[in-house]
Amino acid sequence: MAINTDSTPRSGWAVESSIVAKRTFNPIRTVVDQMKIVPHPDKAMIALSIGDPTVFGNLSAPESAVEATIANVHTGKFNGYCHSAGDVKSRTAIAEYYTCENAPITVDDVIITSGCSGALDLAIGVLGNEGDNILVPLPGFSLYQTLAESKGMTVQHYPLLADSNWEVDLEALAGMIDNRTMAIVVNNPSNPCGSVYSKDHLKAILAVAEKNFVPIIADEIYADMAFEKDSFFPLASLESSVPILAVGGLAKRWLVPGWRVGWILINDRNNVFGKEVRAGLNSLTQLILGANTMAQSLIPAMLNDTKQDFYTDTLSTLQKHAQLSYEMISKIPGLTPVMPQGAMYMMVGIDVEAFTDLKTDMEMCQALITEESVFVLPGSCFQKPNFFRIVFTAPIEKLREAYERLAEFCEKHRK
Amino acid sequence: MAINTDSTPRSGWAVESSIVAKRTFNPIRTVVDQMKIVPHPDKAMIALSIGDPTVFGNLSAPESAVEATIANVHTGKFNGYCHSAGDVKSRTAIAEYYTCENAPITVDDVIITSGCSGALDLAIGVLGNEGDNILVPLPGFSLYQTLAESKGMTVQHYPLLADSNWEVDLEALAGMIDNRTMAIVVNNPSNPCGSVYSKDHLKAILAVAEKNFVPIIADEIYADMAFEKDSFFPLASLESSVPILAVGGLAKRWLVPGWRVGWILINDRNNVFGKEVRAGLNSLTQLILGANTMAQSLIPAMLNDTKQDFYTDTLSTLQKHAQLSYEMISKIPGLTPVMPQGAMYMMVGIDVEAFTDLKTDMEMCQALITEESVFVLPGSCFQKPNFFRIVFTAPIEKLREAYERLAEFCEKHRK
Repeated sequence: MAINTDSTPRSGWAVESSIVAKRTFNPIRTVVDQMKIVPHPDKAMIALSIGDPTVFGNLSAPESAVEATIANVHTGKFNGYCHSAGDVKSRTAIAEYYTCENAPITVDDVIITSGCSGALDLAIGVLGNEGDNILVPLPGFSLYQTLAESKGMTVQHYPLLADSNWEVDLEALAGMIDNRTMAIVVNNPSNPCGSVYSKDHLKAILAVAEKNFVPIIADEIYADMAFEKDSFFPLASLESSVPILAVGGLAKRWLVPGWRVGWILINDRNNVFGKEVRAGLNSLTQLILGANTMAQSLIPAMLNDTKQDFYTDTLSTLQKHAQLSYEMISKIPGLTPVMPQGAMYMMVGIDVEAFTDLKTDMEMCQALITEESVFVLPGSCFQKPNFFRIVFTAPIEKLREAYERLAEFCEKHRK
Repeated sequence: MAINTDSTPRSGWAVESSIVAKRTFNPIRTVVDQMKIVPHPDKAMIALSIGDPTVFGNLSAPESAVEATIANVHTGKFNGYCHSAGDVKSRTAIAEYYTCENAPITVDDVIITSGCSGALDLAIGVLGNEGDNILVPLPGFSLYQTLAESKGMTVQHYPLLADSNWEVDLEALAGMIDNRTMAIVVNNPSNPCGSVYSKDHLKAILAVAEKNFVPIIADEIYADMAFEKDSFFPLASLESSVPILAVGGLAKRWLVPGWRVGWILINDRNNVFGKEVRAGLNSLTQLILGANTMAQSLIPAMLNDTKQDFYTDTLSTLQKHAQLSYEMISKIPGLTPVMPQGAMYMMVGIDVEAFTDLKTDMEMCQALITEESVFVLPGSCFQKPNFFRIVFTAPIEKLREAYERLAEFCEKHRK
């Protein structure tokens, strides 16, 4: 019970928030807070801004989830604590679902977390120290930066190439790696791009990591959400010596983002992480415990009893929406959509020179709300100015209406 | 996109776990890991070690919880994300439930978190920096230390007085405060002591905090779980200028610890925390988002529609168990139980001089498992050697059986 030596008494109240709290911020919030979200009074708001597929009610959780919830709540057996790394039965179900020949995993390689954001928190937290850096995609999901900076790390944004289907600029990626680079975050399928990488491109990314001895955090929360059959490859399923923490969850594919069930799959075929990183991950799970026990109890049913139709219906809906979005926006002069191959997002390039008074993505998105009640996120939210991101999960009539308003809006502002 | 200057290429794989992961540890686990948890082959294990009231199945969640789950899962409306600080309807229900004349709170003073451990994580995280210290009770719940040390803070343990019903040694508390003391954690009712403090004692604690200008984190997860009617007082309800973050949740009183629904009530009548601490708490909620949306949706029904009988039945069961525990253990020479006034725990003092071969609480608890298949946690788990903690939630027959074995065990080992 050592007592600090500085014991000058305080003479009044002076409570500050911590350094960590001060350096924790969400770049999306920072951008959106600058906008005035006041829609046109005569036009119903259509928000294509929120990465939550459940908001419009047209995409529902699988029946397996509802049935398992009702069955399990009646037993009263899922009200108590479970293991901090997750319920063993559920971890086993996840391991069996995702194991594959090239990347075999068992229950010991699975940690269940409070959402995929909890998985990212643990993965970044176990690999990096204050002053280290991690490499994240640009454009990319802002939480990587929020988490890393909260922990006192820095992020380096490696560019994705809009002209090559948002593939990684490999040379730029390699050039950013230094001795404080603790991980490369690879997000496939991508938010905000909707891109799905080929096997060859993923191998090329692995080669960069392998050559420079940098572990990868594979954000695969949109795993298996590729429109073309068998076109998604888990990064860990490809041959390499790179240790991979793959993060995923129930959020998007099973349409229950609010249930906060995520996981980490530890892919460490060459025993690079060894015991230490595993022990570290397990220690970190003890801080706040993981996902709700009831929600964890649904995992085996949701993974094993969900009908194939549920997956194919969801994907064909998303693909149809993507196609409509691409076709309608392609016809608008001054805008250049990049066709997605999966997930639920599309990035649209803005030729600001084509417009009289919309000098930035921020100005365009702001005016689009004010004049047309259509809300899309400025590319600046993803460090990619002069783009905007569309979430195409809304019902198709709403999408059509939104794009008609967008066309009219662009017509009005065109030079 | 600044690139660090140190770019000597790495020559091989060398991945370590982070400093934060390395300094994150659970003292209970450290103690229990040293024990051999192998029960006597002929005696069924009775574990009175786990602070989870649901493990034996004799204490069930209220009907309101089951009914609301079934109703809400059918709507499909609670599958998506909600606000990172928690659903507004549920936060309103919490504010209305806990507001009182002396400590009025509104929806803006409530943050919903992933369990009460999530609430403690945020409360400690927003007030303290690396190198700061917080004052925590001894004996006390180990998570305070785990969270603080994970964040690079230190803890100072202020003593509770076993002879005075585990009241705080106020002089010792005051003597530990220095300029790096960012908070005092007050846990009432207490784990592991089961003590419930009088109004006067709580006022005396507030006076120490007030005189030294130190905010309080009031861990009130066992709020209203006092055996004597109207004997529990929320710390914030007493007059003082001390800003208080009170943490609580559904875990214990509503018997659903696994559902991970906790909250912070910001009691800041004198505007000491001001905007900054509030903003900091809100920033921290954005890191991994809070509780499961479905579980949050149950809060209004559980707080407002749970029948009074549920609370009185639970409390009278716990009180009966506490009395039986106290009476039976009081009769065992060499053991001195301290009668609890609430919660679900009792501490028992060990006179090690009275036994031939049990020199420490560790040795006694270890031998009790091996010889009698009764598992209680050594006081060392709570920094209080020569005590052990009993969780008295098990069915009364099991408690009786456990204490009979304990008596026989002590008889056998007595000098």
